[in-house]
Amino acid sequence: MSSISTQPFTCNGRHYTPPARPIVVICLDGSADEYLDCALARGRMPRTQVLICHGYRGKVRGALPSFTNVNNASIVTGVPPSIHGISGNYFLDPDSGEEVMMNSAKFLRVGTLLAEASHSGRRVGMVTAKDKLREMLSHGMQGIGFSAEKADTVTLETHGIADALTLVGKPLPKIYSPEASLFTLQAGVALLRAERCDLLYLSLTDYMQHSYSPEDPEALLFYANIDTEIGNLLDAGAIVAATADHGMNAKQRHDGSPNVLYLETLLTEEFGAGIKVILPITDPYVKHHGALGSFAVVHLPLSVAVERVYSFINTLEGITEVYRREEAVRRLELPSDRIGELVVLSGRDVVIGRTEAYHDISALEGGLRSHGGRYEEMVPLLLSEPLTPTYYRKAQADPRNFDIFDFAINGGASC
Amino acid sequence: MSSISTQPFTCNGRHYTPPARPIVVICLDGSADEYLDCALARGRMPRTQVLICHGYRGKVRGALPSFTNVNNASIVTGVPPSIHGISGNYFLDPDSGEEVMMNSAKFLRVGTLLAEASHSGRRVGMVTAKDKLREMLSHGMQGIGFSAEKADTVTLETHGIADALTLVGKPLPKIYSPEASLFTLQAGVALLRAERCDLLYLSLTDYMQHSYSPEDPEALLFYANIDTEIGNLLDAGAIVAATADHGMNAKQRHDGSPNVLYLETLLTEEFGAGIKVILPITDPYVKHHGALGSFAVVHLPLSVAVERVYSFINTLEGITEVYRREEAVRRLELPSDRIGELVVLSGRDVVIGRTEAYHDISALEGGLRSHGGRYEEMVPLLLSEPLTPTYYRKAQADPRNFDIFDFAINGGASC
Repeated sequence: MSSISTQPFTCNGRHYTPPARPIVVICLDGSADEYLDCALARGRMPRTQVLICHGYRGKVRGALPSFTNVNNASIVTGVPPSIHGISGNYFLDPDSGEEVMMNSAKFLRVGTLLAEASHSGRRVGMVTAKDKLREMLSHGMQGIGFSAEKADTVTLETHGIADALTLVGKPLPKIYSPEASLFTLQAGVALLRAERCDLLYLSLTDYMQHSYSPEDPEALLFYANIDTEIGNLLDAGAIVAATADHGMNAKQRHDGSPNVLYLETLLTEEFGAGIKVILPITDPYVKHHGALGSFAVVHLPLSVAVERVYSFINTLEGITEVYRREEAVRRLELPSDRIGELVVLSGRDVVIGRTEAYHDISALEGGLRSHGGRYEEMVPLLLSEPLTPTYYRKAQADPRNFDIFDFAINGGASC
Repeated sequence: MSSISTQPFTCNGRHYTPPARPIVVICLDGSADEYLDCALARGRMPRTQVLICHGYRGKVRGALPSFTNVNNASIVTGVPPSIHGISGNYFLDPDSGEEVMMNSAKFLRVGTLLAEASHSGRRVGMVTAKDKLREMLSHGMQGIGFSAEKADTVTLETHGIADALTLVGKPLPKIYSPEASLFTLQAGVALLRAERCDLLYLSLTDYMQHSYSPEDPEALLFYANIDTEIGNLLDAGAIVAATADHGMNAKQRHDGSPNVLYLETLLTEEFGAGIKVILPITDPYVKHHGALGSFAVVHLPLSVAVERVYSFINTLEGITEVYRREEAVRRLELPSDRIGELVVLSGRDVVIGRTEAYHDISALEGGLRSHGGRYEEMVPLLLSEPLTPTYYRKAQADPRNFDIFDFAINGGASC
């Protein structure tokens, strides 16, 4: 193994003092605890089981809304959305008045720890399953950053690597497949083995969790395959840490139909035209969730009083929380200029839609499983090392999923 | 085995159609998922592991506040606190103006399914670890109902059994011990083996969870011993279901000191004397939590405007939710006449106290672990049978811990 930098670095007020070992942080996209529970109980994750017993497994609180971009941005910056600025996958841009994807680094208000680590001398690698996250998460970073989705079109100039497919030795995965995530992990293994990286962030996709329940054979096989790659990462000498961006729950009625509250329709009926319900779960990957999640922001025209709409939403069945802008900033740690006048969360089995016509429910395969609200906030944290006493106490308080690089780099007792 | 009644019965609008097999429902008091996770990963719960793989493990939502009496009352009635009336362990009785324990069946506003089952011909047994629950939970029931705590003073007239200690064959357990819970399970095993009961509710105590983290050897041993008794119940031919009344989290600062927000002190400083903060976690078992939990109700004198206090509490650091009475009724399913003008919940690592002088923190052994709020709401549900398709769909929605008798009696596919 060539030498590994132990140069400390700082990012957004946090200090990182890396050990002379490769470090791999995995975002198991959409991994509600139940997926681990089911696979572990059935003996399908033997390497993860040993990891837990030697190291640590606990629960951490994610950022809200419990969406992918929000939490991936938090993980690589170590701060909540109020600071990094990514409030969803999608938002109404107050500057342009347009509804746009929030995929670009231009929306990120702080630097990433991956960039800082790369400037300190770490050989950093960042592999995402979905290409939508790549540009934002690898912003400012020297090193390797590519997606499984577009691993066939990498260039040295843009991605820091020209031979991703050859290196991984697998065919280009389809984005709606388990292979998109497995390829991401396999890329991490290959980068470690080739000694091309010694600090890795691997961010998977939740297509499988949107599609399958934890007990389904497809989900169990998927987690068994994840376990194999975790074993490969451990065998390559890495400290391995894993968390999730959000959990996942079925959002269906007892007959299996999606349990949707069409909020824009309800508000338009009550208050007239001009109210916009923005669904920040919206992203280009329509087969996952049909833009239906348990979180919405409401933009009101000046003619409609905020308090009237607040009171109306506050008594709707299925809605669990509603906040005025300033309350959402304080309670949900959201950036005040990238949300609406109201922020709305729905229950464990309820999603919020705009209008019936807006959503293509036919694209959902095998029922609706989704996220975005309070009941997908708590996610697992795994670390392959025992925690130091200091980090054990941190784990016993209110740790966050975006503390994971802190835990992985600073928290291991045997590093 | 003598014959077991399959006579259907009804309670609070729910219908139960029991199979001709013994049924055991366990309330694993304070069993946050992490306790199962840690013990299962270390191979300390082999019978439970098989149970999960053959049957079901998932998450269910408890009743709020996430306290013992509230959730035990919900489990035996199948309804939320708004209907059964038990809003805490402790409350300010509006009739008397006194602060009193809410242990008595006189506070229960509906009948229990244990009583209904016993009237339908089931031989019902109800064993609690803490005596405080016994009278309320066995109200109206024909059959056997006693506590581990007072198993030495049972009478046929009051408890339906005269020989509890002899039957169990164990010494009377101390209430601050793992044996209090294990005795409760062992009593269930003995009642099954002696064919004296065929429908059992066994409700443990959370002394161990208040005292130990999931990884602690004492907790692992405790769950290993629970597993042995679950195995004994299965070997006696029972359908076994388990859930928890609430989870458990460390409520400490990083230095290990209790993370308490003394709300009555803060409100008195701001608004003057006369405000009462009632802590419904309060119970006679002071070593558990020192009456410190993540839930409080606030009673205001007429001279203080509710909205002013609402706004003040709403911005306090560590407070996660505050509701006016009517909102608490709707959102938290609480009985309007047994809460204050305001209902307050605190964060994962924060508890609410009255005043510093009110609480005896010295009684807490080895740090504060407690519950009562939103972050102790989600709990496990285990069932030894695979679910029918109908109950699998129910489990995939927003199932509650107080659905457990429904799942155990009506939900098993192989019954």
